[in-house]
Amino acid sequence: MYTGLKGKHLIYEQDWEKEEIEALLDMALDLKKMRALKQSHKYLDTRTLFLLFFEESTRTRNAFETGITQLGGHANYLIPKLTQIDHGEGPKDTVEVLSRYGEGIGIRNTTWGVGNRYMRELAKYSRIPVINLQCDLFHPTQSLADLLTLKEKLGDLRGKKFVMSWTYAPKYVRPISMPQSLITLMPRFGLDVTLAHPPEFFLMPEIVEQARENARKAGSRFEIVHDMDEAFQDADVIYAKSWGALAYTQDEPTILQLIEKYPGWKVTEQGMQLTKEDSRYMHCMPIDRGIEVENAVADGSHSVIYDEAENRLHIAKAIMALTME
Amino acid sequence: MYTGLKGKHLIYEQDWEKEEIEALLDMALDLKKMRALKQSHKYLDTRTLFLLFFEESTRTRNAFETGITQLGGHANYLIPKLTQIDHGEGPKDTVEVLSRYGEGIGIRNTTWGVGNRYMRELAKYSRIPVINLQCDLFHPTQSLADLLTLKEKLGDLRGKKFVMSWTYAPKYVRPISMPQSLITLMPRFGLDVTLAHPPEFFLMPEIVEQARENARKAGSRFEIVHDMDEAFQDADVIYAKSWGALAYTQDEPTILQLIEKYPGWKVTEQGMQLTKEDSRYMHCMPIDRGIEVENAVADGSHSVIYDEAENRLHIAKAIMALTME
Amino acid sequence: MYTGLKGKHLIYEQDWEKEEIEALLDMALDLKKMRALKQSHKYLDTRTLFLLFFEESTRTRNAFETGITQLGGHANYLIPKLTQIDHGEGPKDTVEVLSRYGEGIGIRNTTWGVGNRYMRELAKYSRIPVINLQCDLFHPTQSLADLLTLKEKLGDLRGKKFVMSWTYAPKYVRPISMPQSLITLMPRFGLDVTLAHPPEFFLMPEIVEQARENARKAGSRFEIVHDMDEAFQDADVIYAKSWGALAYTQDEPTILQLIEKYPGWKVTEQGMQLTKEDSRYMHCMPIDRGIEVENAVADGSHSVIYDEAENRLHIAKAIMALTME
Repeated sequence: MYTGLKGKHLIYEQDWEKEEIEALLDMALDLKKMRALKQSHKYLDTRTLFLLFFEESTRTRNAFETGITQLGGHANYLIPKLTQIDHGEGPKDTVEVLSRYGEGIGIRNTTWGVGNRYMRELAKYSRIPVINLQCDLFHPTQSLADLLTLKEKLGDLRGKKFVMSWTYAPKYVRPISMPQSLITLMPRFGLDVTLAHPPEFFLMPEIVEQARENARKAGSRFEIVHDMDEAFQDADVIYAKSWGALAYTQDEPTILQLIEKYPGWKVTEQGMQLTKEDSRYMHCMPIDRGIEVENAVADGSHSVIYDEAENRLHIAKAIMALTME
Repeated sequence: MYTGLKGKHLIYEQDWEKEEIEALLDMALDLKKMRALKQSHKYLDTRTLFLLFFEESTRTRNAFETGITQLGGHANYLIPKLTQIDHGEGPKDTVEVLSRYGEGIGIRNTTWGVGNRYMRELAKYSRIPVINLQCDLFHPTQSLADLLTLKEKLGDLRGKKFVMSWTYAPKYVRPISMPQSLITLMPRFGLDVTLAHPPEFFLMPEIVEQARENARKAGSRFEIVHDMDEAFQDADVIYAKSWGALAYTQDEPTILQLIEKYPGWKVTEQGMQLTKEDSRYMHCMPIDRGIEVENAVADGSHSVIYDEAENRLHIAKAIMALTME
Repeated sequence: MYTGLKGKHLIYEQDWEKEEIEALLDMALDLKKMRALKQSHKYLDTRTLFLLFFEESTRTRNAFETGITQLGGHANYLIPKLTQIDHGEGPKDTVEVLSRYGEGIGIRNTTWGVGNRYMRELAKYSRIPVINLQCDLFHPTQSLADLLTLKEKLGDLRGKKFVMSWTYAPKYVRPISMPQSLITLMPRFGLDVTLAHPPEFFLMPEIVEQARENARKAGSRFEIVHDMDEAFQDADVIYAKSWGALAYTQDEPTILQLIEKYPGWKVTEQGMQLTKEDSRYMHCMPIDRGIEVENAVADGSHSVIYDEAENRLHIAKAIMALTME
């Protein structure tokens, strides 16, 4: 199992078998313990991970850059305008070269219609594992850290109610990658998923279909509601963040206007009272504090956002340790 | 002493006891010798230092980045626009996450009324040491390197005349952090400090008061003069650089105009003849050559600017080795 | 031989003796084999290489950054606007400081009339080796990797026909450093060099003269032709890329207009039929695909572009291992 993952790309969680994901979580916990004990674990000594960021990042970049350092290797942090990519070099030429130099490549590119396609194209020519650090469709390194967090917090996930809720947030349009990753991943591990959003903020139909199919196979449940309170009722987990409207993905002003219809979609202390007493509030961060969620919730007893963020590190290390050679 | 510094922030020199600073200088000299002998000294193997720069840097960044490499660890070089800070993420969320990943965080932010406050806010929530890489008020990693340089050059510091002089320099306004750090730190170690500047370029009254108090306690002297020649008379050390006018800190054009009143405040060979024969010329760099100082002085026999710059490395390493875990 | 290279700058291939270059190629092959066998080769443990890029880069940066990681050290990636260089700090002050901190410094600066001069100025004051990562005149880390590739592909180089051909490419003006490095280096190792370009795209007369002189001394041949087909006849190696017109180097629009006179200078499958059956197609990348060369050639059986790009890594490592202390 463990050794079989060398060279495997991670672009969409669905490309990994459940057993492979379990091996990954197990490895993440091992590495977490080793770090806590300050045990050396340089499994990737002198190895290079390329980090190619088309957009800004705090958690993803630092989880991987710090992670590869702890594993004994090094991350080359690259942005397109400082490489030949902005001089027009295509994915084949870029990756044919980089995969001769280093041992892994992570990419963030959330541009709609571009990001996932770019990664798939890189993966086609790459000799080293390609890791999706968030694209227009998925965000697996976050969703897997979230799964790890839930295992730590809840133990048995079977039958637990996981709410993936849209929230209001102005200023800029967030990708749909986070909810798409979570609704497809969580049912496979026994969680009952409720997806909640205003009607216009639906996700890709084929992804929703995949979520349903995953729930069916795993014997868990999947439902969609258009009311936040209804969704929160008896929830074990509230994962609530803003995202853009799929129907208008090319047109930011229209989406921002549409978002303005729903300022009431906010996580409040009052709303959290509808959930189970020991429910958890999750967010992948950055949070638009006071807008997406009341500070009293984000900093309150339900919140596990920092533990969740920490697990980004341990999952990042497990992905690298298992896939890079 | 040594082990007691683990986790300690370094934001203002005054927060460190004299004995703690002496332990730091001692460690810096040890590390300097080890490097000269090419002895391995990986005290921070696989550890991460975050370097968060709101402004450009040559010496500070490279002293820390090279330093952590020599100690076996790695620096993540971060600038706000490539992180979620420019997407509005506040200091609490940023540091709660980073301090789960790495072992230390250094910040440069010299924006008036912002920099020091930002660091104090980070320190409040940080689980790892916060190192001030220059703020609007202080520049401790430079002043401590300067103190080390003086110990090497002068031996006994007691009763030596240290002149902190303003100089003319156009184009942009320099922070007051350097003189504020130096006038408070140097009297504690026995140096007699003369602060020289045109009347409008006074420093913060509470900092000047602290300098006086430090001199009083240590039995050294502190004085302010408004004439460069008077200050240079019989000086052992000339530390001369430009800074902005506190009374107008929000208004760059006004300060630049005010600076134009004093083009004569320049370190010259003639001026250096007023000092002791074996006096030292210091500058934290970058120097505005030919403007702040004649090249003949900057490159002449009094100048210790490159030895001073080198000590940035050894002090940086000592700070990291003593405070990071 | 090997130990004698410590501290040696690499700015122009001509500054290195033939035997020194042979030692370098030999070391590159040793390091290539060690990596293939995953043998540890941390010859520069905890050492720092400064990488100062005035322009974007993919291969050069990543070959050196990954290379120093494999050798156990670390690269500080620097760009002028994030250092004090853009605040006006000159080369002397920059390098006097950096060469106290780290063990090597690489620079890319291809600005006409500036790049090479800047490097020579740095080298004058540097205590550590200065490596030219491409300037306005030369690109030695690429040409040496190309020489290594040719040794691997052709074995005996004596009497082989090496064509350095200009190609058409619009949008921006490429430096003349690549052809100038190749025409002077290749004759020293026995290759017969044919330089092909439209009349206006001549190289610097003194460099052409050096190429002739090198050929004469080595008993190889050097010629210039102004017809692509004539050049390709019976060639063993086609190295074809665009460059700017020397006579107008300050004036980009004029050069771009001049380039438009020669859209027919393109490497085609038809053109390759004039060459020897087992001839090689080379390009330093980034390639303007479909413009400089047909994709069928770039991705075809003659092409060695990715092997050539990989050798950037091994040559980079050999340069560092031999010159840095």
